[in-house]
Amino acid sequence: MSSGKILVAQGGGPTAVINQSLAGVVLEARRMQQVTRVYGALHGVRGIVDEDFVDLGQETSANLELVAATPSSALGSTRDKPDIPYCQEIFKVLQAHEIGHFFYIGGNDSSDTVRIVSEEAAKAGYALRCVHIPKTIDNDLVGSDHTPGFPSAARFVAQAFAGANLDNASLPGVYVGVVMGRHAGFLTAAAALGRKFPDDGPHLIYLPERVFVLEQFLADVKAVYERYGRCVVAVSEGIHDASGAAIATLLSKEVERDAHGNVQLSGTGALADLLCDEIKSKLGIKRVRGDTFGYLQRSFLGCVSDVDQREAREVAEKAVQFAMWGGRDGSVAIQRSGDYAVNYALLALSDVAGKTRVMEDEFISASGTDVTDAFRLYLRPLLGSGMPDAFRLRPARVDKILNK
Amino acid sequence: MSSGKILVAQGGGPTAVINQSLAGVVLEARRMQQVTRVYGALHGVRGIVDEDFVDLGQETSANLELVAATPSSALGSTRDKPDIPYCQEIFKVLQAHEIGHFFYIGGNDSSDTVRIVSEEAAKAGYALRCVHIPKTIDNDLVGSDHTPGFPSAARFVAQAFAGANLDNASLPGVYVGVVMGRHAGFLTAAAALGRKFPDDGPHLIYLPERVFVLEQFLADVKAVYERYGRCVVAVSEGIHDASGAAIATLLSKEVERDAHGNVQLSGTGALADLLCDEIKSKLGIKRVRGDTFGYLQRSFLGCVSDVDQREAREVAEKAVQFAMWGGRDGSVAIQRSGDYAVNYALLALSDVAGKTRVMEDEFISASGTDVTDAFRLYLRPLLGSGMPDAFRLRPARVDKILNK
Repeated sequence: MSSGKILVAQGGGPTAVINQSLAGVVLEARRMQQVTRVYGALHGVRGIVDEDFVDLGQETSANLELVAATPSSALGSTRDKPDIPYCQEIFKVLQAHEIGHFFYIGGNDSSDTVRIVSEEAAKAGYALRCVHIPKTIDNDLVGSDHTPGFPSAARFVAQAFAGANLDNASLPGVYVGVVMGRHAGFLTAAAALGRKFPDDGPHLIYLPERVFVLEQFLADVKAVYERYGRCVVAVSEGIHDASGAAIATLLSKEVERDAHGNVQLSGTGALADLLCDEIKSKLGIKRVRGDTFGYLQRSFLGCVSDVDQREAREVAEKAVQFAMWGGRDGSVAIQRSGDYAVNYALLALSDVAGKTRVMEDEFISASGTDVTDAFRLYLRPLLGSGMPDAFRLRPARVDKILNK
Repeated sequence: MSSGKILVAQGGGPTAVINQSLAGVVLEARRMQQVTRVYGALHGVRGIVDEDFVDLGQETSANLELVAATPSSALGSTRDKPDIPYCQEIFKVLQAHEIGHFFYIGGNDSSDTVRIVSEEAAKAGYALRCVHIPKTIDNDLVGSDHTPGFPSAARFVAQAFAGANLDNASLPGVYVGVVMGRHAGFLTAAAALGRKFPDDGPHLIYLPERVFVLEQFLADVKAVYERYGRCVVAVSEGIHDASGAAIATLLSKEVERDAHGNVQLSGTGALADLLCDEIKSKLGIKRVRGDTFGYLQRSFLGCVSDVDQREAREVAEKAVQFAMWGGRDGSVAIQRSGDYAVNYALLALSDVAGKTRVMEDEFISASGTDVTDAFRLYLRPLLGSGMPDAFRLRPARVDKILNK
């Protein structure tokens, strides 16, 4: 049997519920007889290499519950992507501290980190159980119905577009909202769940799963504007041309990349401004406004799905149970069962790591600028309870006297 | 006695609670014996000129309550600013429909519209009671402790910065959030209410009440970054240099103005991008991210202060009562009484219209980049109940073994 010391860390971008998973690991591990210590590494794998560990066995359950309900990574995160030498450093530290179980809460890149660490441990003959606990607002992990963090971010996007639509109806014009999502359009597509009445926006949704053609975009906006006198558009930051070049990068001189080779798309309003300038100049529409939702959509304090909270907790509890009783490494996946219930499974790391799920064709309308009923049925239960609703006057018109 | 027909309209930018005021006028007027008709004009004064009236007496109370809880102007809004000929058109229409009371829900510009309409009515010898019902997220009306709409927008800003601070603590770097507010910094200052722990951001707050000097800004960011390894900054879109020129317009070639001569500041990410570029290039900090809160802060569906809701309703009820029993035109103001309670007063239109309140000096710290305790005491009760809270781990460090 492996060592009774476990280590948990958080990687990648924070979410509204990532600390539910942290609390899930710690509280589940603390109730197990064979667990002697529950360590947390500060700032992900970087904290392992630096031996920046905290003893989570000395944290109160009450505070763990309060931290669980707080968004963003309580242990801190990192964008480091370990290569072979980096992993050898990790082993040295884990060995020195006699860590037997490693739980890493993160997304695509983090699952790849877990895979590398797991493989390096096997090569080195070191008895280490590695389990990846899923988390990403992008919803782009393969093998999962959806990923913790996505439902809460989707709820933010749906509420934001519901409000933007009301604003736009009040002071008509064109509104462009840019949503996170490099390759997968799930989060942008969530904008559709902000609609209620037939003429509500977003009227157009542009996803990275479809090639973005500026001329077609302008024609689409023009058609909606002529029909409704206004137009609300949801755009993924990851939209690209036929060659695959991101529209956002076509206009910026310097391109910033992180350790994973990802180009910076968020934290700049350039894409929204470009699209608004095109609409103003080419269509001659005066009132055109663009917002980039940026970090608000993943970190806003006070917008969370209770379904997401529950599942982020459970996925971590299951990770500890799989590790303790299952005897193999893997990545925990959420599987949908019924309408609406979930089960959890442990997938092979190699089946998840480094792979990217994008929106299934059945979720995207034939026009390519809307979602299908299948997507609405898929997303609705994830948004949780207490979704705010919008109501309209049902006015009785008064006869004109002067302008009959 | 004036006619028993009343007309209500909504002007300017929508807020989270402007429909509370609409419902307040309608429900209060409907219970008064002398009121025979309650009309609403669609899209503000534009709808008056166009005779686009709806009979709100034919709307159910249940739906009025649901609309009250929905953000953005249910009747639609306008940016039109009536001049003399425009007002003469308004009179013709009001006279033809025998309107005796005109209630206009709006901000600075709308109060000026009410003043002009009131004066033109007096000149024309037309018996019209005109009451301005305050509404603006900018909180810039003189004579009021605060204005309906501001508390809910302030709550959004405080929650947004509380979340952005957690995100920034997890993945350290510099974060710049740009907040609405052309001349008054109240909404930007609300970012300070997102802080809890001593090292929480926003660490720096830049208000339009103080001259913005780029070199000093960079020195401030550098000092915070060196102290905490990170920096969260709140910036008003209205920051300007010593000559009064908006920093946001210094870099844009074309400047868009509305009918009131206001330059477009929102709906573009240019200011945040400019500041981030300066920080990257001048301070050599790599991870720098900027968000422009844009329309989210005034229209997000699901972030509202219950105190704001109640007061927006009351201010409209009082407007109807003042109009029916007071016999003079005016603008309704909220006056603070105790800690925390409010009274309502009817101010002369000329004392409010066209004037802009800015943050009092006692609300701004000596450094010019923070608020005072007086401001925190001023704002806290307005944010309402159920503010989300953020919690941290209180970690027990584990001794290092390899890196002793």
